[in-house]
Amino acid sequence: MRILFCIALISSFFAKAQTINTVSPDGNIRLAVSINNGASYTVSFKGRAVLLPSSLGLQFKEPEVILNNFTLERMDSSMVDETWAPVWGEYSSIRNHYREVKLRLKEKSKGILMDIVFRVFNEGVGFRYEFPAQPNLGHFVIADERSEFHLAGNHKAFWIPGDYDTNEFIYNETNLSEVDAGSSKFAQEIHAKTFFDRNAVQTPLMLKSNDGLYINIHEASLVNYPAMNLVLDKSSFTLRSHLVPDAVGNKAYLQTPSRSPWRTIIVSDKATDIIAANRMILNLNEPSKLQETSWIRPQKYVGVWWEMHVGKSSWDYSGSQVGSQQSTKVPHGANTANVKRYIDFAARHGFDAVLVEGWNTGWEDWFGKWEEDVFDFVTPYPDYDVKELARYSKEKGVRIIAHHETSGSVTNYERWMDTAYRFMQAHGMNSVKTGYVGRIIPRGEHHDGQWMVNHYVRAADKTSKYGIMVDMHESVRLTGLHRTYPNWMASEAARGNEFNAWSSGNPPAHETILPFTRLMGGPMDYTPGIFQIKMNVYDTSKKEQVQTTLAKQLALYITMYSPLQMAADLPENYEKNLDAFQFIKDVAVDWDDTKVLAGEPGDFLVIARKAKGSPNWFLGGITDENQRALSTPLSFLDKGRRYVATIYRDAVNAHWKNNPMAYTIERFIVDSATTLNFLMAAGGGMAVSVVPATNDNSKGLKKYKK
Amino acid sequence: MRILFCIALISSFFAKAQTINTVSPDGNIRLAVSINNGASYTVSFKGRAVLLPSSLGLQFKEPEVILNNFTLERMDSSMVDETWAPVWGEYSSIRNHYREVKLRLKEKSKGILMDIVFRVFNEGVGFRYEFPAQPNLGHFVIADERSEFHLAGNHKAFWIPGDYDTNEFIYNETNLSEVDAGSSKFAQEIHAKTFFDRNAVQTPLMLKSNDGLYINIHEASLVNYPAMNLVLDKSSFTLRSHLVPDAVGNKAYLQTPSRSPWRTIIVSDKATDIIAANRMILNLNEPSKLQETSWIRPQKYVGVWWEMHVGKSSWDYSGSQVGSQQSTKVPHGANTANVKRYIDFAARHGFDAVLVEGWNTGWEDWFGKWEEDVFDFVTPYPDYDVKELARYSKEKGVRIIAHHETSGSVTNYERWMDTAYRFMQAHGMNSVKTGYVGRIIPRGEHHDGQWMVNHYVRAADKTSKYGIMVDMHESVRLTGLHRTYPNWMASEAARGNEFNAWSSGNPPAHETILPFTRLMGGPMDYTPGIFQIKMNVYDTSKKEQVQTTLAKQLALYITMYSPLQMAADLPENYEKNLDAFQFIKDVAVDWDDTKVLAGEPGDFLVIARKAKGSPNWFLGGITDENQRALSTPLSFLDKGRRYVATIYRDAVNAHWKNNPMAYTIERFIVDSATTLNFLMAAGGGMAVSVVPATNDNSKGLKKYKK
Repeated sequence: MRILFCIALISSFFAKAQTINTVSPDGNIRLAVSINNGASYTVSFKGRAVLLPSSLGLQFKEPEVILNNFTLERMDSSMVDETWAPVWGEYSSIRNHYREVKLRLKEKSKGILMDIVFRVFNEGVGFRYEFPAQPNLGHFVIADERSEFHLAGNHKAFWIPGDYDTNEFIYNETNLSEVDAGSSKFAQEIHAKTFFDRNAVQTPLMLKSNDGLYINIHEASLVNYPAMNLVLDKSSFTLRSHLVPDAVGNKAYLQTPSRSPWRTIIVSDKATDIIAANRMILNLNEPSKLQETSWIRPQKYVGVWWEMHVGKSSWDYSGSQVGSQQSTKVPHGANTANVKRYIDFAARHGFDAVLVEGWNTGWEDWFGKWEEDVFDFVTPYPDYDVKELARYSKEKGVRIIAHHETSGSVTNYERWMDTAYRFMQAHGMNSVKTGYVGRIIPRGEHHDGQWMVNHYVRAADKTSKYGIMVDMHESVRLTGLHRTYPNWMASEAARGNEFNAWSSGNPPAHETILPFTRLMGGPMDYTPGIFQIKMNVYDTSKKEQVQTTLAKQLALYITMYSPLQMAADLPENYEKNLDAFQFIKDVAVDWDDTKVLAGEPGDFLVIARKAKGSPNWFLGGITDENQRALSTPLSFLDKGRRYVATIYRDAVNAHWKNNPMAYTIERFIVDSATTLNFLMAAGGGMAVSVVPATNDNSKGLKKYKK
Repeated sequence: MRILFCIALISSFFAKAQTINTVSPDGNIRLAVSINNGASYTVSFKGRAVLLPSSLGLQFKEPEVILNNFTLERMDSSMVDETWAPVWGEYSSIRNHYREVKLRLKEKSKGILMDIVFRVFNEGVGFRYEFPAQPNLGHFVIADERSEFHLAGNHKAFWIPGDYDTNEFIYNETNLSEVDAGSSKFAQEIHAKTFFDRNAVQTPLMLKSNDGLYINIHEASLVNYPAMNLVLDKSSFTLRSHLVPDAVGNKAYLQTPSRSPWRTIIVSDKATDIIAANRMILNLNEPSKLQETSWIRPQKYVGVWWEMHVGKSSWDYSGSQVGSQQSTKVPHGANTANVKRYIDFAARHGFDAVLVEGWNTGWEDWFGKWEEDVFDFVTPYPDYDVKELARYSKEKGVRIIAHHETSGSVTNYERWMDTAYRFMQAHGMNSVKTGYVGRIIPRGEHHDGQWMVNHYVRAADKTSKYGIMVDMHESVRLTGLHRTYPNWMASEAARGNEFNAWSSGNPPAHETILPFTRLMGGPMDYTPGIFQIKMNVYDTSKKEQVQTTLAKQLALYITMYSPLQMAADLPENYEKNLDAFQFIKDVAVDWDDTKVLAGEPGDFLVIARKAKGSPNWFLGGITDENQRALSTPLSFLDKGRRYVATIYRDAVNAHWKNNPMAYTIERFIVDSATTLNFLMAAGGGMAVSVVPATNDNSKGLKKYKK
């Protein structure tokens, strides 16, 4: 439903300063756009300032012009209220409800026409620049975008450093005045970092004001444009857009008609609303470009992967390439017998797929040399029998997930793509995990620049044409494009669980921040489910460990949404804890509904989700380094229906550092009147499965009591 | 035949300064290499200095080291005398005869091992750097090469400006002291120029000393390395290597074992020897990588091409894209009916193929915007019926030559290559002309850098796998790689005939210089054969003209060697001059033997060639802007055999500017005792076909008399 309520005001009407006000459908959010030579906007929420007057505009390199001086030529407004159903996701249907105002601006010096389009949702505001077809502007080059986000105070910020190539940082929780992206503490273990400004941060940027407003700044539908970093002016707490440059310092090459991604400001006085509002970002993306999507299946997988990270086996045939820096040689992980072991395990426990890394030649010398022709994506190592494994996995009803590590050499990968996808098809594979470790080739391009942004979209598009689902690692952060390319199941694009195997790791608060930041843009292949928490089991000299309890690893399957979820640990570690493993086997990866029950970024988070096409609910709660007691009413359950809840919680004496693997499993009868009370250990969590009670599953169970 | 005559001297033997002397098989050329901390070399010819002591070495960026301080670890010498047969070329067999000395050097600071290999031929000297596999050097990055060519005086030089992206300049004939690559006179009509040093020139560089030595400096086998420019130190007349950088300023990414291209110094006291010595460059290239070469066929072609250059038709469907800057719209050239007209013409006159440019969508907006996805190489314009033309051309026994203009967007072309070559196969095409007009994508890379050098080789390799011959325009200058990839028929890589249609053009001396410069590295698709010399026929306002006589256009088929020769003019222009056109119809494009009979760079050139597998000879003579009389003994003809010579010469009153189209055709009986005397008009030339006399063809002909 789209209602046009005001169009085509004549330009003479706007001869002097003009302010256009728009409110969200629920009236809570108010946008005021002012055209007074320059263009600026303010945003408020329930009468409280979210953004003070913030400039809008761009600088072009070709033609050479700064777009900051305009006449308002025309204004169109409309209101939209519609619902749509994603192919997969956190909700079976999503409401798209906003007021739109579109301003046609004419730049004064060269007469360039540009539209700024605002959409005001109940959840926040989105705006973008549009460059309509016009006689005097065809191709143009953007020198930089000059969008501002002028915050109302020295908010608390959950930030990672601005960078052109990586987002695999630990989050910082500081006031804006303390942002220092140049700090030497930032991970040295990241392979391609391009620092550019001490005051630069990345999006999604999560903010909290002193008076309790939660603000999230990000972008939506990042297509044919570089990613946006934000540079903070600490004197005014103004964030300014800074686009990732290309090899020669330009930002974007565009041709009319075209448009920028949406810039998004999500705001609420409740932290939980922020996570729920990731739907606003989806709403700002285009509908699916794929007609036929029945082949796209959310899936759970295991993989020949963590054993390389912990140093038990190697990516390469010669046995030298492991996650940790160790000198002793270890066996090649991706050998036929070992892969069959994983296939057997996957089949036995109902997993959809087995990821195999290190199957193709090139790993001996794959990394860090800016070498172009590293991998060919079709030549297996001699001990990897690709035909036999295709046969065996088919027999077992398990798919092998292909792995295409590009080593950052994207020109090489683009030359191989068709051949590699045909090879996958010929061997029964329909999912691929891509990787972009290291400096990009074309040399001088960056992971988050326009060229690579186009590559990721190209990869999503091309895999879709081969009926292949894709999971991208070391890619640009997500912006909701999985709506448009529903075969783009997930990305890494943040600091994943793997860092716990061989680095300073991810502090206990990490997973409480990611859903408010990285995950706002889309699913993350975080690879949860590590049961063997301490790495000294593999090598007594190792001090690394996962910085959570085992129960929290279970909870991540709920709090970290992804349609592609790995059970990342080794089969033998699951076999030692089959009772806890049952939760991973049971948990869904596609949902009809999602309830963000409680949360505070950096502290804790509780989410409940209803499995797609099923009455079953799953609940996950996590805490940071602090022990925490929470109560959760199960009022979302069907009224009058009895359910069996299986609770996987930290044992009473559990602690992420001292006693991380102590857990307790209990089963109770619950209903919509039940309130669950749970105590999470320091660095701990809780996972609950809730299924309708039957005579079979409820025998002898007691009703849950506070 | 390889004779090793001295190997493995122990390193202690070389504790102090050491000079290694090597002479050419005929004793005329003497090379002396000196290792005295640094490495240097001198070259002399018949006792006259060619190169004074000239340093050798390299600078690495990673590891950071300058390789200019060595110990001599080992020396190996050998002599080779062998012959081989090219798949096609100027000779049916080529002798490869040289002495080689290979010095194993150890760089003192880091212990890096490097070999310098010299080969001394009767024609000149080649050397290259080799980087053997070694424990402490794997991947490395070259900051620059430090090879010197220290000339013995202020020689006359035939030079074009050093550049990273183009070689389409008019040649300059000045003393070295007058080199100025920054002169504003250099062509503004070139679309991607990257000037970097006023004293920089390109190779092949042709030099002539005051005492009559001819020296040519170039490189051979340019693979996985950037092209070499030369920067002149005018105080000492020393030329120093300057490699073309990549997007971030590095020169080459290599991994041991690897090697540089050969640096070549060809020398003689006869100008004609220089051209004949292009075989030395071939000898320094690797043998053919192609096993099956029977599908590779030298060919003559016509094409829908010149009519766009002269403004009669357009590359694009909307009629706006023509060679000259004209505002009126013209018809789209590559329409089915027009292409059929060319096919009919080709079939009628025995041509092998028809080139069609502007057949595929994208030309409306193809150029100058650094746009990536311009062409897809498989989508014809609506008026180009690709299926019907495949059928029609097959019926007529004529091949269509595909045209793949990349607009410099090579990442895009590499993504399309397989699809485009399959499309060619499906439509009966087995030759492609590629183009690289404009700035390169990957942005920041250059036409002549390592990345593009690798692309050209990749294109040659990949086309060969599809049974496709390739002709590259706007590519790097050639270095003899057509020996290794005999399907790489020709390149443009210099200022071609097309400039005469819409620019200041090519002065009359141009074609007398090219065989001593650009063509030293391999065939050029110069596109000779323009009969309608003055452009005002097409548009009375036009002042452009081809700066030769018509007879000289015929001679170019001999003096500009290529296995892919175009008859570039319009069918209607040939039909007006069918008697002269007969020479183009008769002339061969593949040869058993070649005799460079007379020549002086910048002045004149006379070459005779014997057609492959035939007793027929063809002779071409050209002069610069000066009228010139020459005598040429036909002593290369079979003794005692009578031949019919058809002589196509300038009419007595011909002149390139005032009366360019006046020609005379005469036929005589000649034999090996005949001496041809001919007078070439200013900017003129002469072409002669010589076929054995039969009763039929010699009826009524007189013996040629002086």
